[in-house]
Order: sequence, then C-alpha cells, then structure tokens
Amino acid sequence: MFVVARTLPRTTATRVSNRAFSASATCAKERLVILGSGWGSYEVLRGLDKKRWDVTVVSPNSYFNFTPLLASCSVGTLELRCATEPVRRYAPQITTYQAWCDSIDFKNKTLQCVTTSDTSPKTTDRSQTPAPSYSPQTETPPPATNVKFTVPYDRLVVGVGAYSQTFGTPGVKENALFLKDVRDARAIRARILDCFEQANQPTLSDVERRKLLNFCIVGGGPTGVEFAAELHDLIHAEIQSHYPNLAKMARITLYDVAPSILGMFDRELVNYTENTLRREGVRIRTGHHVERVEKDHMIVTEQGEVPFGLLVWSTGLAPNPLISSISELQKTERTGRCIVVDGHLNAVRTDGTVDPNVWVIGDSARTPDAVLPATAQVANQQAKFLTRQLNRIAKDKSVDRVFEFHNMGSLAYIGNWKAIYDRGNGTNKGGAFAKERGRVAWLLWRSAYFTRTLSMRNKILVPFYWFMNWIFGRDLTRF
Amino acid sequence: MFVVARTLPRTTATRVSNRAFSASATCAKERLVILGSGWGSYEVLRGLDKKRWDVTVVSPNSYFNFTPLLASCSVGTLELRCATEPVRRYAPQITTYQAWCDSIDFKNKTLQCVTTSDTSPKTTDRSQTPAPSYSPQTETPPPATNVKFTVPYDRLVVGVGAYSQTFGTPGVKENALFLKDVRDARAIRARILDCFEQANQPTLSDVERRKLLNFCIVGGGPTGVEFAAELHDLIHAEIQSHYPNLAKMARITLYDVAPSILGMFDRELVNYTENTLRREGVRIRTGHHVERVEKDHMIVTEQGEVPFGLLVWSTGLAPNPLISSISELQKTERTGRCIVVDGHLNAVRTDGTVDPNVWVIGDSARTPDAVLPATAQVANQQAKFLTRQLNRIAKDKSVDRVFEFHNMGSLAYIGNWKAIYDRGNGTNKGGAFAKERGRVAWLLWRSAYFTRTLSMRNKILVPFYWFMNWIFGRDLTRF
Repeated sequence: MFVVARTLPRTTATRVSNRAFSASATCAKERLVILGSGWGSYEVLRGLDKKRWDVTVVSPNSYFNFTPLLASCSVGTLELRCATEPVRRYAPQITTYQAWCDSIDFKNKTLQCVTTSDTSPKTTDRSQTPAPSYSPQTETPPPATNVKFTVPYDRLVVGVGAYSQTFGTPGVKENALFLKDVRDARAIRARILDCFEQANQPTLSDVERRKLLNFCIVGGGPTGVEFAAELHDLIHAEIQSHYPNLAKMARITLYDVAPSILGMFDRELVNYTENTLRREGVRIRTGHHVERVEKDHMIVTEQGEVPFGLLVWSTGLAPNPLISSISELQKTERTGRCIVVDGHLNAVRTDGTVDPNVWVIGDSARTPDAVLPATAQVANQQAKFLTRQLNRIAKDKSVDRVFEFHNMGSLAYIGNWKAIYDRGNGTNKGGAFAKERGRVAWLLWRSAYFTRTLSMRNKILVPFYWFMNWIFGRDLTRF
Repeated sequence: MFVVARTLPRTTATRVSNRAFSASATCAKERLVILGSGWGSYEVLRGLDKKRWDVTVVSPNSYFNFTPLLASCSVGTLELRCATEPVRRYAPQITTYQAWCDSIDFKNKTLQCVTTSDTSPKTTDRSQTPAPSYSPQTETPPPATNVKFTVPYDRLVVGVGAYSQTFGTPGVKENALFLKDVRDARAIRARILDCFEQANQPTLSDVERRKLLNFCIVGGGPTGVEFAAELHDLIHAEIQSHYPNLAKMARITLYDVAPSILGMFDRELVNYTENTLRREGVRIRTGHHVERVEKDHMIVTEQGEVPFGLLVWSTGLAPNPLISSISELQKTERTGRCIVVDGHLNAVRTDGTVDPNVWVIGDSARTPDAVLPATAQVANQQAKFLTRQLNRIAKDKSVDRVFEFHNMGSLAYIGNWKAIYDRGNGTNKGGAFAKERGRVAWLLWRSAYFTRTLSMRNKILVPFYWFMNWIFGRDLTRF
C-alpha cells in the first residue's frame, strides 16, 4: 500500500499498519520525530521515555558518531567501531528511517524525506562526494532509486547539525578529507598508510617521496590539532619502526588563517601547545590562506604551491541545507546557519511567536541569552534538558525551567600523552581545574572520553584497544 | 636514480642502495624473493631465518588473510582485523613491495613487477573490479600511475595462489561478491545490512522486501556452507531482535551444480549438514545451474529468474594470470592452473629438468605423488617443509627428505554452535576423531582456529570478540 499512497498515515488505526516494523503497540502515544543522529538528537533518543512517546528517528546515518574519538580512529589508535553507536539499538521500540529530510511543512506537520540506505561507494546520494572519502558535503540530488516519502509528526526535534565549512575554496570537496564521520576516519587511515606504501615503491625519487609524505591539515581548531597530534604519534611510533627511512621524510603542517591556533583556548595554553607541537616537528603556519586545492597539491597565498599526500580539512561549520530551506522560522542574520529558539529551545517563527511543537538543538540552534559555541557539549546539554521537558510533557506536566548552559571547559589532545584543558569562559576561572596541561590534562581527557563513551560495549572496547595498541602497537594493515 | 634505471641492481655494492628501506645490512646474503602473501607464502616468510636470507616479498596485498575467519567477519561475529596479519610486521628486517608480478624471466632470474599500493575504491588496478566490492578477479591493466620495475632474485618462492572460478558465467564478476579477501568480507557485511535497511524503507511493498532479503550463495563447498551458517546465525539473533518483521521475510539459499554439497566430506556428515541446514530454514538447491547474473537477479536453469539482495559466489579456483603466463615450466594438462613440482617442491621445467632455485607451493603447485586438495592446510604444510629446506640451504646443508602431506582432516562450521569434522582420506579412518559432528566438532573448530591464529594480537582479539559478541550481540552499524 505504501507504494500507492506514500504518506505514512497519522490516524491511530492506520499508524499501526505503517508502523509494521515497530513491535510496540503505539495507539495512544503522540508521534515524536527526531531529525538527525548526532550529539543532540542521539542524546534525546537515549533519554526519551519510549513508553510514553511514539518515536521515529529520521537520519541519513544509521549510527551516532562519537566525534571526540574520530582523530584516534583515523590513525588506528582505536578501531572505527569504538566511535559509533547504532541508532537501531533502540529498535523495534522505535521506528528509524535512514533518509534525508528535504523540507518541513510546519502547517501540516509533515516531513518530506528521501530514502538513502545504500552506503556502498557507488551511490552518489548526499552523503557521498566525488572526493576520495564519504563526507556529507555535496548536495547532489539522490539517485532515482531513492524514493521520496512523507512522515507526519505531532512533535518535532530538529538536531541535524551543520556541514563542514570550505569558504567556497575550489577543489576542497573533491581533494581534501574531512573528519566529521567514521567513514572519513576510515578513509584518512587508509590514505595515510597508502602514502607510506606508495613512497616505499622502489621506483620513486626522494623528491617524489617527500611530496607523498607531506601531510597537511587546514584548520587550527581542536579537531585539526588533535589529528596533527595523533598523526605525529603514529609516525613516531609504528611508522618509525616499520618504515624507518620514510618516517624521516614525513612532515606534518597545520594551516590556519587566524594569527594563532585554538582560538577559543586560553592564550597561555595555546602558547604551550604551539611550542609542544613545534618541538615535535609539527609545522604551524598561522595567518596562511589556501586559495585552491588540486588532486595532489594546494595553492597557499603565502607559500605558492604546496604538494601533499593527504589533506585534512577542518575549518568550522557551514549551514545545513535543511535549515537553509526553512523560511517559516527566524534565523541568525549573517550566516543563516542557526534557527532562533526561546528559553525552552522551541523554534521562534518569523512573526515572533513560538512553535510549541518544534524544538531545535545543537549546531543549528541559536539560544536567546548567549551565543553558545557549536560544540558537542552544548548539543548534549540541550538534549538532556529537552529530554527532561519531553518526558514531563508526556506525563501532561508543564515544562519547568529554561535552558542554561554550564560550561564544563574544553579539552584537546596535543600528542605524546599530553593534553590541554581550559575551564574557560570566565565561569569559575581559577577553580581547581581552571587550566591544566600535560599529563594531568591527558588523564582528564582520557577519563572524560571514557566515561562519556555511551554503550557498555564501547566502555569495554575503548580501553581494551588503548591497552592492545599500547602493547602491540597500532595495526598498519590496509584494506 | 630509480626513475632513470628501473632495475634494482643485483651487485652487493648497489644492492645496499636499492635496499635503502631495509635496515639490515645484506651484503653476503642470497636474495630470496617470495611471491604472494597467502597461506603458503606468509608461512614461509614467518619461518624463514631472516638473518641468513635477504628476503623480499612481492604481493598485491599488504597483509595475510586468515581465510577460515572471513565468513565470521562477513557477518560481524568477528571484526575484520582479526582475520589479517600485516606482511610489514617483519619490516625493516625484510623488503616488501606491494605490487603485482607480471612475468618471470627464469633465465636472467628477474621478476617484472607493477606497483599497486592504492587501496582506495577509485583505482582500478587488478585488485579492483567494477563490482560492488574489491575482489581479485579482473585483469584490467593497472592505471598509468602504477609503474613497472624489475626485481632480481637468487632464489624464488612462488605462492601466488589461484583466482575465483566463475566458469565464465556472465555477470558474476560485476554483480556477485566473493569471499576470498577481508575486503570481500567488509563488502558483504555492509551489503547484508544495506539489504535490511533498504527493506525497512516505508515505501516498499512486501514483494520488494522479499526480493531484497533473498540471500543467495552459489557453491556448496566449506566456504559457501560456513557463510550460509554464519548468515543464518546473524539473522536469527541480532536481525531477529532489531528487525523482527524483516527477519521473517529473509531467505538463505545455497546453490550447487553437484548432486550434494561438501563433496569432499564423508557422506554421513553431509547428510547431517544438509538436514541441519534445512531444519534451520536454509534452502539447498543442488543440481542447479546458474546461467547468468544481473544486477539484482540471476537466471537459474531449473528455476528461471531468481531475485536477490546479495549473491555470494564461491565455486572453486581459476588459474592465476601469472601462472598462465609461464611457458618455461611444466603445468597440469587440463586446467593449466598448477605448476608441476618435484618431491622437494622445486618447479619442473618443460624439458623435465628441475629448477633448483624456484619453488612453487600452495594452490598453484602440483605434487608428483598425489593430487592434493587446494586447501590452506596443504599450502601451510608445504610452506613449513620449504622453510626448513631453505634454512638448511642457508647453512650450506643439503636438502633432506621429500615433502609428505599429512591430512589433518577437514572442519566446517554449520551454524548454531555446530560443526562437522572429517579426518578424511582413508588415513587413520576410525581413529579417535575419524568423524565428529555437533558441539564437539564445534569445539575442535574453535580451538583449531584459535591456536592457528597467528600473531599474539589476534590470539587475544579473536576470543575477545567471540566473548563481546556473545554478551552484547553483533554490531549492526554500517559505514
């Protein structure tokens, strides 16, 4: 019947039929649709009282990315699956559709979705670029095989996040790798080892080898710094022992347009980081501008042509096409990346009124009081807040307090078992852990990630692999 | 200099320079080249006295596939890396080139090789098909970026194995997946989960769903049977709990042209297996012929059009192009798949004389006494024998005895914690373990694999994942 009428009916009677794939009888419950499976959306899914809500998740990904571990995964310090949690672990208690949401009809409370379930490199849906790796950059329309369908909602949580920012630099999407998804991490890991294997070919000159072993990172934020640090660790451990002569030729360079890296961190910590990285041979090129990226080199205004074997691009966030497509809600003036929400994270309509059935969280939400950083921490806290509200609503209780962000500070791994920690943003400055660096911060970093790692499975996997790779070294197998 | 003169020089003086990537000083040693990194070649590499030989490995793969675990990996019972061992673990003690050997010049003792180090799906070297997955089937010439080079040898071990047999059936290479490499296992795992995710789309009819959830296996050998069994386990465990309604629609069908599956096994065990699989709902279609394979269906003479979501093809071995290219050595009449060797596994020239510097082992060797099965066990025993000989030669001792195969019997996992074990081939028939089936055989199966798993790392990883997945279930995340 779906093929004929492609709208999933809303009425209780028929909902049961369209919910053929949910074991839970769902008659009385309100239909809550969650868009996305990131830090915000996935946390809402986790915390939500699924007995009281008829939950449907619509996300192009079938899993949640535990982003803080992606840098480690991309060099093999951890296995890829340590950094993912399947959305489907809550099925059949919930309904999940792996699909893109194209547009939202706020009046009729329906979502226009298009299926995208094939992960094979062949397909070119929006989650695929012509680039060497998967990355959610292109907006290529999905292939004809993917069908559109409509999902109705009673309440809607929008947590679709943002895309990677390229500032329109030509060639980035095609020739650089991003580090936002576990597939990116897999592609980077394979590429790093490819570079060494290719440089190992007997027919190459040392000049050619040095070009292949030039690893460039554009973007001096935590992601870029952590990847540079992890890559340095890899090269000075396993690569050093397996390709001794090639390890000498490898170079890591960190580019940023800003005058310094890690803008949001305390100045002192930044200096410490820059010195640490420089001492370890990582070259830092701040105040540099990338004009264009080609297959194996990029044009830097201050340097001219810079050949590379691998280019990792991490320069902030760009608007999500879905958010851009929304005209009924207020958005931030300049970028238009965020939807304005009220104290309860409800979306604010263009006429200034609040939509009581639509919440926006994470990178695409702009809270009234303060401009919050687009971090996992914010999305996670907003999700926890919203979950509480939704569980109250389900019990016909009124929503209580408004959302408040409690800054737990920022951590960044800077290599060689060292990290920096900044309690940050004035709050509790000078407190017990106002600032930390080196091994202590590294301990904080590890324990923080360890306890935040969600499922019990990964609570075991992560330290297990930390231990295994500490004993046996990282696995250099490529496939 | 390599770019100019692309022959790696043989003289001691220059060898050091061309061995720039080997830390071991190698002046006095004879140069031993190993072709391949499979059951035979890798075992030789492991056992060889690397202090006495100047070892170079030339293989298109940078790793050894522990094939008995691939079926488990393809359904997520084990992680992919449990089934691989990096060849490079012995570097820099040895030299390894990831390359294809195109031809062997036995007179001048040189190998013509072509580099192939890029594993990304973009490239179309011989390890890539247009098919949904990697598979070593096509003979597409490598892209221009890959350069030819020459490797000289003093002694040569040929262990290149065989390709998958398709009997020229149209469409197999393009539309079926094989199960010979860890990349095949990855592709199969992703495809299985894709099928369920696609079938979960709200817009499909149940007819369309049943087509997607029809899993076909062509080839009733141990590989086909073990994959069918593992897939059945997956569907009746994790899939059952996460996609209850879809699990009901899934069908597994095992095709073979022969009148029965597992030809080499004892009749009684075969009956037991067929009954066990049938009872579990696996359909066995023996005496069936596949005429043609299209994108999403195949034409079976006895059935007509058979739609499938996944087709796994495992119907024996085809000649390796390198072996076919050799005209100087005697080969088996009919197939020409194997090179005839003497009792010491030395290759026999067309004039009947023996080449004292060339050994052939594994699937591409044909021993004088008996026709041995093309199994890992045979390749492994030949490798162990050859290693002993080579280590004697290095000590200027004469080679001793001739090779004898000791059949340790065959094991096959048939699902649901059961396996069959056949001591086989008359030897010690009726001995303690002449025949075993069910849980006892399963224990044998697990312990056999466990102890054969090579590195300490995998000795820990394999039981760890058996335990993890027994507790938490297999991970259904796809990426």
